[in-house]
Amino acid sequence: MNILVTLDENYIPPLKVMLWSLFFNNPGCDFKVYLLHSSIPENSLRSLRRFVENNGQKLFPIQIDNNYFENAPVVMHYTKEMYYRLLAYKFLPQDMNKILYLDPDILIINSIRELYNMDISDNLFAAAFHKRVPIKEINKLRLKAYEMEEYFNSGVLLMNLELQRKEIDEGEIFKYVEKNKARLVLPDQDILNALFAKRIKALDEFKYNFDTRYYKYARLLNSKAINMEYIIKNTVILHFCGKKKPWKKNYSGKFHSLYQHYIALSQRQCLKH
Amino acid sequence: MNILVTLDENYIPPLKVMLWSLFFNNPGCDFKVYLLHSSIPENSLRSLRRFVENNGQKLFPIQIDNNYFENAPVVMHYTKEMYYRLLAYKFLPQDMNKILYLDPDILIINSIRELYNMDISDNLFAAAFHKRVPIKEINKLRLKAYEMEEYFNSGVLLMNLELQRKEIDEGEIFKYVEKNKARLVLPDQDILNALFAKRIKALDEFKYNFDTRYYKYARLLNSKAINMEYIIKNTVILHFCGKKKPWKKNYSGKFHSLYQHYIALSQRQCLKH
Repeated sequence: MNILVTLDENYIPPLKVMLWSLFFNNPGCDFKVYLLHSSIPENSLRSLRRFVENNGQKLFPIQIDNNYFENAPVVMHYTKEMYYRLLAYKFLPQDMNKILYLDPDILIINSIRELYNMDISDNLFAAAFHKRVPIKEINKLRLKAYEMEEYFNSGVLLMNLELQRKEIDEGEIFKYVEKNKARLVLPDQDILNALFAKRIKALDEFKYNFDTRYYKYARLLNSKAINMEYIIKNTVILHFCGKKKPWKKNYSGKFHSLYQHYIALSQRQCLKH
Repeated sequence: MNILVTLDENYIPPLKVMLWSLFFNNPGCDFKVYLLHSSIPENSLRSLRRFVENNGQKLFPIQIDNNYFENAPVVMHYTKEMYYRLLAYKFLPQDMNKILYLDPDILIINSIRELYNMDISDNLFAAAFHKRVPIKEINKLRLKAYEMEEYFNSGVLLMNLELQRKEIDEGEIFKYVEKNKARLVLPDQDILNALFAKRIKALDEFKYNFDTRYYKYARLLNSKAINMEYIIKNTVILHFCGKKKPWKKNYSGKFHSLYQHYIALSQRQCLKH
């Protein structure tokens, strides 16, 4: 299975935890991890490669020349790396058909196989939308993209690279960014929603992109059918969305002990393959 | 390493979770699990043995004839199984010197080796006391055992079987129970404290018997040095004390997600050895 991550050096520690949880909960699977980056130093890449290989998997770092996006517009304090996720198909091997993008603030706690093997031949992406009515309404107004049906979260993206090569036009993306600069808050997520919402297959958020902040909210919305046992057994991807992160001091949340245990395990146990 | 458990059929599901966490977090260790019981049916024992063996370890069930305790006094609704923990040395192989007793409502999340190898040659037991001043004072009065210095929790007991064979007199235990029947609340724990407190080596409760109900209390008492990261890295044994258990509906606690994940793992993954 092909896994895509795009990040800077600061996110390497949680990336290791995320990858370890993916490998551990998917025994017997071969993973090729593609890392798109602009400036991670050689020694950090070496240490990350050692980590991935000690756990029986493979890492392929791809450094992107900043000149590539010379003429692309930028948004506030965001760097041009905001484009890596949407234009990954340009930098990945040209014969690759499919890849699963994952944010580093994620734990994978069950098998990813069903997600990876999902048929997305008619869609550019598969992603989950976080169904919280007020947020959705706010975003619709903010982005002025009325054709948008849901607000998709870009932290988990199954990518149909074959179709993307045919249909996604980077010029169109740059044009949209140029025009909407002032309005974009989470640039890549906003672009994804504004330009591609109709070409995204919707994933079950409880299964593939569970926002850990909304445990209580999720229980309320679903008449308590969603309890801890249900989530731990059925959810594949826990996403620690938001500013407070479970690897930081003073974090507190329903999945804190689980995340910290995965930090400890990833530092302690090499997974033979 | 020798592990002792004593329980009835109802506790087999959490026992499996406890054992799996022990095996998983102690790779490369050989465990012999001794199960003292009175009436667990043959098919449940077979299924438990299969579970233990699939994870590369060994199970030794020892059925104790109820006639053995024919003349022993009983306390309220407790059965004679309350004696199994204190008199285990009578039923275990007579050449065994040391064994670690563990309650089933426990998760082992780090290496048990340092605990197991601890020198207890001058003590009958090693156990942790739960240092919560009011409880200690209350128990002192209730048991009228003024020589008692701390109230030890009997959920984790490292046993010096060699010395116990020489020093523990079952007659003395029965006499004490007969005399104090009306006062005993947690019989085996009360007896342990009243008769043997001075012969118990004290264990660090944060390391070897962390009461999961008291996460906040522990943080307060220890000026917040005890945080989630510290506990997950340093605590070996998490003890889910009290009536509310993490495998039951409507449980809620700091280690809920972690416990539920261990249930899922223990049902899913066989540990090769």
